[in-house]
Amino acid sequence: MTIDANIASARLRVAELHAELVRNELVVWTGGNVSERVVGGDLMVIKPSGVAYDDLGPEDMILCTLDGQVVPNSIGSHRNPSSDTAAHAYVYRNMPDVGGVVHTHSTYAVAWSALGIPIPCCITAMADEFGGPIPIGPFAVIGDDSIGRGIVDTLRGHRSRAVLMANHGPFTIGTDARDAVKAAVMVEDVAKAMYVARQLGDPDPIPQESIDRLFARYQGVYGQPDAHTDRSVPTS
Amino acid sequence: MTIDANIASARLRVAELHAELVRNELVVWTGGNVSERVVGGDLMVIKPSGVAYDDLGPEDMILCTLDGQVVPNSIGSHRNPSSDTAAHAYVYRNMPDVGGVVHTHSTYAVAWSALGIPIPCCITAMADEFGGPIPIGPFAVIGDDSIGRGIVDTLRGHRSRAVLMANHGPFTIGTDARDAVKAAVMVEDVAKAMYVARQLGDPDPIPQESIDRLFARYQGVYGQPDAHTDRSVPTS
Amino acid sequence: MTIDANIASARLRVAELHAELVRNELVVWTGGNVSERVVGGDLMVIKPSGVAYDDLGPEDMILCTLDGQVVPNSIGSHRNPSSDTAAHAYVYRNMPDVGGVVHTHSTYAVAWSALGIPIPCCITAMADEFGGPIPIGPFAVIGDDSIGRGIVDTLRGHRSRAVLMANHGPFTIGTDARDAVKAAVMVEDVAKAMYVARQLGDPDPIPQESIDRLFARYQGVYGQPDAHTDRSVPTS
Amino acid sequence: MTIDANIASARLRVAELHAELVRNELVVWTGGNVSERVVGGDLMVIKPSGVAYDDLGPEDMILCTLDGQVVPNSIGSHRNPSSDTAAHAYVYRNMPDVGGVVHTHSTYAVAWSALGIPIPCCITAMADEFGGPIPIGPFAVIGDDSIGRGIVDTLRGHRSRAVLMANHGPFTIGTDARDAVKAAVMVEDVAKAMYVARQLGDPDPIPQESIDRLFARYQGVYGQPDAHTDRSVPTS
Repeated sequence: MTIDANIASARLRVAELHAELVRNELVVWTGGNVSERVVGGDLMVIKPSGVAYDDLGPEDMILCTLDGQVVPNSIGSHRNPSSDTAAHAYVYRNMPDVGGVVHTHSTYAVAWSALGIPIPCCITAMADEFGGPIPIGPFAVIGDDSIGRGIVDTLRGHRSRAVLMANHGPFTIGTDARDAVKAAVMVEDVAKAMYVARQLGDPDPIPQESIDRLFARYQGVYGQPDAHTDRSVPTS
Repeated sequence: MTIDANIASARLRVAELHAELVRNELVVWTGGNVSERVVGGDLMVIKPSGVAYDDLGPEDMILCTLDGQVVPNSIGSHRNPSSDTAAHAYVYRNMPDVGGVVHTHSTYAVAWSALGIPIPCCITAMADEFGGPIPIGPFAVIGDDSIGRGIVDTLRGHRSRAVLMANHGPFTIGTDARDAVKAAVMVEDVAKAMYVARQLGDPDPIPQESIDRLFARYQGVYGQPDAHTDRSVPTS
Repeated sequence: MTIDANIASARLRVAELHAELVRNELVVWTGGNVSERVVGGDLMVIKPSGVAYDDLGPEDMILCTLDGQVVPNSIGSHRNPSSDTAAHAYVYRNMPDVGGVVHTHSTYAVAWSALGIPIPCCITAMADEFGGPIPIGPFAVIGDDSIGRGIVDTLRGHRSRAVLMANHGPFTIGTDARDAVKAAVMVEDVAKAMYVARQLGDPDPIPQESIDRLFARYQGVYGQPDAHTDRSVPTS
Repeated sequence: MTIDANIASARLRVAELHAELVRNELVVWTGGNVSERVVGGDLMVIKPSGVAYDDLGPEDMILCTLDGQVVPNSIGSHRNPSSDTAAHAYVYRNMPDVGGVVHTHSTYAVAWSALGIPIPCCITAMADEFGGPIPIGPFAVIGDDSIGRGIVDTLRGHRSRAVLMANHGPFTIGTDARDAVKAAVMVEDVAKAMYVARQLGDPDPIPQESIDRLFARYQGVYGQPDAHTDRSVPTS
C-alpha cells in the first residue's frame, strides 16, 4: 500500500475504535483518546481535542508527526489534536514496536491510579493478558514530555501493556490501535474485579510459575492462526 | 437573532440536553432538570415537572421569568415547571455569568452529599474540570429561596461549577446549558472514581501547585479554537 | 368503560410496564413481576411464570381473581401465572386502595433485604418519595399467604410504598401499576445511593420535621395538575 | 431429527446464546464461551477462539468431538475452537446429563473466585436457583484436564449448577446451553447482591430447611408445564 492508503486506513480504524471506548463504557463526554502509528511513515493519527464521540468520523482524525505536530494542510488539520498528543508521540518515538496507544479515565483504573499501588495479579485473566500486576507510573503533569517518559520508563521491558499513571489514569500500548484498545478494556475489567475482590477480603495471588505458564500460552496460542482474527473492528 | 429565535433555540438545546442526562445515566424516571438562560432577555427555559424523558420535545419546555414564574400564554405554559425552578431562577438572578443550570440525583454524587463532606481532589480530571475539591452546600428544604441561595453562596468565587447540596445532590452551573450538563456528567464521574479510591485506601491528594497548573491549562487550551466545538449537541 | 375494556387496558399497561423493569435494570432473565387491579371488577392482571421479557405482549398477561386463581377460558389462561401471584392477590384483597403491585430482585434492595435492616432516610429523594426509611418485612417462604401477609402487615398505615422482605427483596405498591413500578425504580435508586453513602462513612439522617415537609410537598404538588401526567407509559 | 439437523439447531442456539452473554454484561471483548452437546451424537458445538461477539453467526460455531477435537471438514473447522474446549469436553464426557456448559469472567463471580470462598446462601433467589451456596473449585491452569476435572469433581452430586474455579471465574452447567446461560446470568446476579450485602454488614443465612423447600418448589413448579417455555431464545 502507498503511504496515503496507510493513512486512510489508520484514520478509519482509529475512528471506529473510538466507538469501542464508548461501547465498553471507558469514557464519558469527550474524554479518552486512541492513536495509531501509520505504517511506513513517521506519522500517527489521533483524535481531535474536545469533540463529541458521536461526531468522530475518519476525516476528523488528525495526522501528526512523531514530534506531535499536526501535518500542515492534511485533512482535519484546522483542528487541535488531543491534548495528550505529546504523550502518544513520545511513546511512538521511543518504543518502535508500539503501533497503537490508548488513554482513558476509566473509573476503576483511575481509582487504583489515585492510590498509586499496582493492581495485584490474583486472577487468571490478568496473567493471560498482562503477565503479572499492572504497574504504576510516576505522577506527571501535562505540558512537557513527563507523561510520555513516565509511560515508556514503566512499560519498557515490562510484560504489561498497561500503566496506571499516578493520580491520573491508564495508558495502554499495543501492536496496533486495536490491540491497545483491547488492553484498555481489559485493564478496566481487571481493575474492577480486583477492587471487588479486595473489598471482600484478601485475595490469593497466583504463583509466579502459573502466571508465567498462563502468559506464555495466551500470547502464543489464543485466537486464530490468521493474525487478523482479533483485529476486525466490530460494527457497533 | 430576535428574542423569539433565542427562545426557540434554547427550547431545542434544553430538550436535547435532557436526553444527555438519560444517556449518561444521571437520572431515573422523571428526576433531574436542565435549564438555560435566554440570550437577550430576563428569561429562562426549563423542564416541566414529572414528565417522562421520552416525552420531552422543545415545545414541552417551559418559559419562565427570572422570578421563576411561567410566562403566560407561552408554549407549554399550561404545565407546571420543574419543582426546582425557584432554585434555578435564583442562580440566574444572582450569577449573571451563568447561562445554564443542571440538577440531578446521580448516585455517587448523592452519596457524598449524604455524608456532607467535599470530594477531595486526588485525580487530574478533577483538577482539570473543577480546579479542586467539589464543595458541599448547606442542607436546605425546597419551598423558598434557601436552595438557590445555598448554591450561589457556595459557588460564587469558587472554581468548581458543581456543588453537592447536603443530603440532596449535585447542582451544576455553566456558561450555557451544555456546559452545565458537562459538569453534571463529570461530577458523577469523579464522585464514583473517588468513592472507589477511598474504598481501596487513602488516595494521595494532588499538590495545590499542580492543581493550579492543570486547571489553568484545561480552561485555556483544551478543545478547539472555535468556542462552539464542545457545544454541538450529540445526536442520541 | 366496560369491564372488558378495563381488562384490555390493564393487559396493555402491565405488558408495557414489564419493559420498564428491564429498561431500569431491575430484573434479569425472567425474574420480577408487575400486576394491576382491574377497575370495576374483583380481578387482577399479572405476568406468566418464567417467560422471557422479550416475549411479553398484552395477550400473554394472565387474568386472575383476587384469590389468585386464573380465570378459566380467558386469554392466556393456558399458562401458569407468576409464582408470586398469591402474594399480589393477598395485597389486593387486604388493601383496597392499592391498584398495582411490583416485585423485583433488584440488586441493592436485595442486599439490604439480606441484612434485614431498614434503609435509613438520609437523602431528600427518599423523604419525597417514601416519607422516611424503607421498612423490612418478615422472612417468609413462598407457598402460602405468609409473603402477602408480611407485605400488608408492614405497609398498612406506613408512608412507604416499598417493603424489603427479609432475605428476599422489594415489593412495592401504588395507586396503579405505573405508580408501583415508579416505587420499584426509586427504591433501587435510593438503596444504591444509601449503600454508597454508608460505605463512605456515617451519613446524616434528615430531621423528622424536614422529612415531613418534603413528603407533604412532593405528594401534593409535584407533577402536573392533570393526574395522569406521570401515568403515560414511555415508549421504550 | 437427523444428526445433521441437530447439529444445525445447536449451532443456531449457541450463536444466539452468545448474544445473551453480551446483553447480560457477563463478558468483554472476546472473553467467555457457550457450548452445547449435540443430541444423538458424541459431539459438541462451541465458539471459536478470540473472535468478536458481533461476528458470531451459526456458521462460525465449531463442531468438536467429546475429546475436544475439531471435526475435520465440518463448517468452520478451519478455525481454532475456544481455548476452553478441553474443559467443556471433559464435562460432557463425565456428566452425561449435562447438555450445556458456559464459562465467563463476569466481574463479581470472578472476585469471589479470587477469594476462594463460597458465596453464602442468604437470599431466596439463590436457594431457588442453586439450592445453597455456590461452591469453589480448585486452582487449575489451562493446558490439561485439570479445569474440567475440577468442575466435575465439584459439581457432581451438588445442587449448584455453578462452580467458581479459584482465581479464575465461573463455569456453569445445564440441561442444555440455554439452561447453562441462565445459571451464568444468575450466578453473577447473586454474586453481586451478596457482595453488596457483605459490605453492608453480616447477612443472615437462610435456614437449611427453608433452602430445601425453596429449591424443591422452584425446580418443580416454576415456569410453564410446557418444558420449553424458558427455552425459547429471546430475540436480541
